[in-house]
Amino acid sequence: MSFDEIIDRRGTHSTKWDMMEPIYGVPAEDGLSMWVADMDFRAPPCVQDAVGALHDHGIYGYFGDTTQYNDAIRWWMRERHGWQVDPDHIFTTNGLVNGTAMCVDAFTSPGDGVVLFTPVYHAFARVIKAADRRIVECQLALEDGRYGFDFDAYDVQMTGQEKLLILCSPHNPGGRVWTRDELAGVAAFARRHDLVIVSDEIHHDLVYPGHSHTPMALVDGIADRLVMMSATTKTFNIAGAHVGNVIIADDALRARFARRMAALGTSANAFGMHMATAAYSPDGAAWVDELMQYLDENRRVFDAGVAQIPGVRSMPLDATYLSWVDFTGTGMTREEELHRVEQRARIAVNHGPTFGKGGSGFLRFNIATPRARIHEAVARLQDAFSDLQ
Amino acid sequence: MSFDEIIDRRGTHSTKWDMMEPIYGVPAEDGLSMWVADMDFRAPPCVQDAVGALHDHGIYGYFGDTTQYNDAIRWWMRERHGWQVDPDHIFTTNGLVNGTAMCVDAFTSPGDGVVLFTPVYHAFARVIKAADRRIVECQLALEDGRYGFDFDAYDVQMTGQEKLLILCSPHNPGGRVWTRDELAGVAAFARRHDLVIVSDEIHHDLVYPGHSHTPMALVDGIADRLVMMSATTKTFNIAGAHVGNVIIADDALRARFARRMAALGTSANAFGMHMATAAYSPDGAAWVDELMQYLDENRRVFDAGVAQIPGVRSMPLDATYLSWVDFTGTGMTREEELHRVEQRARIAVNHGPTFGKGGSGFLRFNIATPRARIHEAVARLQDAFSDLQ
Ligand SMILES: Cc1ncc(COP(=O)(O)O)c(C=O)c1O
Ligand SMILES: Cc1ncc(COP(=O)(O)O)c(C=O)c1O
Repeated sequence: MSFDEIIDRRGTHSTKWDMMEPIYGVPAEDGLSMWVADMDFRAPPCVQDAVGALHDHGIYGYFGDTTQYNDAIRWWMRERHGWQVDPDHIFTTNGLVNGTAMCVDAFTSPGDGVVLFTPVYHAFARVIKAADRRIVECQLALEDGRYGFDFDAYDVQMTGQEKLLILCSPHNPGGRVWTRDELAGVAAFARRHDLVIVSDEIHHDLVYPGHSHTPMALVDGIADRLVMMSATTKTFNIAGAHVGNVIIADDALRARFARRMAALGTSANAFGMHMATAAYSPDGAAWVDELMQYLDENRRVFDAGVAQIPGVRSMPLDATYLSWVDFTGTGMTREEELHRVEQRARIAVNHGPTFGKGGSGFLRFNIATPRARIHEAVARLQDAFSDLQ
Repeated sequence: MSFDEIIDRRGTHSTKWDMMEPIYGVPAEDGLSMWVADMDFRAPPCVQDAVGALHDHGIYGYFGDTTQYNDAIRWWMRERHGWQVDPDHIFTTNGLVNGTAMCVDAFTSPGDGVVLFTPVYHAFARVIKAADRRIVECQLALEDGRYGFDFDAYDVQMTGQEKLLILCSPHNPGGRVWTRDELAGVAAFARRHDLVIVSDEIHHDLVYPGHSHTPMALVDGIADRLVMMSATTKTFNIAGAHVGNVIIADDALRARFARRMAALGTSANAFGMHMATAAYSPDGAAWVDELMQYLDENRRVFDAGVAQIPGVRSMPLDATYLSWVDFTGTGMTREEELHRVEQRARIAVNHGPTFGKGGSGFLRFNIATPRARIHEAVARLQDAFSDLQ
């Protein structure tokens, strides 16, 4: 597997590459796309072979029998995360934005508050708002340049109208792998305010050497209010397959979710099911281990490179390939900062404010791309801000 | 393209073939699967090539830029159905069960009545019920062995609490292509009772020579209460791709639907988008024309064969590959009839009562399979009922 190979994704209906110019005005010709969270690497051979087998078979009818799929999930969660999953607890949604939205729909009513620890993955706020629920932004504390919780402040914010809490674990953006103590704090907070917790652990496999992710399901005293979400799509770069899992151990919560799944006629596409089954395998695991070593060096190169720019600093990532870069130290206006990154460096990135309270002054860079592009991005950024040096 | 080729689908995670034994007790070994509505033929080469191109590319990220996809839909609807579609009116759902369910969710409230012309595709009732809406069964009239509407009877049934009508056009089961007059009757009925119409036209391409389908969108005076649904999945045998279109010209209805799409985080998978774009093309059109000629002979063989069995008669199909067979003339109990079909003939079929009022005594046979299997099915049925001859 060579992660160094540059594969041109332009003209392939890639959101990341083909919408870069229409959305950000960064030229398709020589722009670098570092926004949307998918990777510029091929999926692992075991997954690509699954697509090949579908191609060869040629009949693309309704998918049936989820036994092997569920077995693959259970194997992965046990082997990689020390978590035993009951197959009867697994729902397959059309990805995890859909999974999150279904939780908001199933567990809250219009007007209810849904708690987010911000800045956080922007689609959460989008679905909460579209569903006429109230977004309750509990801002993460910045300590030594890393995010943490400030539960005392959050306790004061609660009004009693909050019903749900969406946790991003590991956290996007910022890349924190929450410690067991921090997760116990989240659990206690949810109990104090009687909140259902949706733990979106889509980034749980993308953890750098030296860090270890704890599934929320392993935290005590939370099972009766917990919804776990995971997917193969970030881990194996198959977001286009739009398949994710919502895993619910509590009988009452599971029954509520099941009713909404049935009422919304939700079922999984055959491509996602075949690919996910192939991915959660020893071959898939070996590929992820290699991937994380590659990404580890990418983040080192990227962090070192941006640190050369006075006033610019990336947050140290425990997990994820989404580098969260603080430009506030440059003292520039938002316009100036964006002009330099988008127009001068010709790099498309996610804008901080879309992640909610605490996001302004930051830009999110996707570093899951061949190393040569990381070097190029660093060089362009250094050049675009060279007058500061 | 040889539709005669027998392709073994067992062990491929095919609902139709791999769930036949667990659900119907028809042995996988030598059973014939004629239930679920997908075909035992390969998708057209243009679609298979699209899967091949995805396989080769190897990167399965987020799908972006729906221009080509929308253009393909517009081309198809104009060329094949004489219908002009505005690209801004198109929503892509995760298949049409999901599309139907989203309509029920968007346009009705719990307790509201949803009108069905029964017997009809069973998933409609399933999602209505799961959403705590009331199923209002308006039974189709049987005239000369074919289905028709009896609006006088339906007028009497309405209570004023009905909000939505789901029309299946062409009709599944029974295969009627509704005439323009009949559709105008449905439109007038909907106006009289102030119902939104969801017109599920998923079978609109599977029309036999000599019949012509009218899109509900071409019927006068209905645009302000009409939701059109169509898909590539039945036409090109790609149901596993789980992609369908909900097309809404009315601004107010479209805005309501759009809000639910956003609130439920619904977006389409990349495989379905690529395959559907490839399918709606001149090559896809030529394939469908060939397919319909092949199916036409299948239905001739099947109808003639079952007509040999005293008291058994299939409804003449204008469209669809779903033969609706009336066993009431045999005077047998349901148990006896099922025993002979499932145990003796070893054929898995859909049971009539699951289609609602008017379905009992019928079984639905899927004839979209190589001709040799149609002959085999006929022979087995004749044998299983040979004592009647
Ligand atoms: C935390 C988180 N959840 C969900 C998603 C998207 O999930 P999906 O593609 O399955 O809808 C992302 C994508 O970046 C993410 O970061
Ligand atoms: C009338 C009708 N609508 C919808 C469907 C299924 O649609 P989808 O597979 O897109 O959910 C079928 C399948 O048989 C059908 O007959």
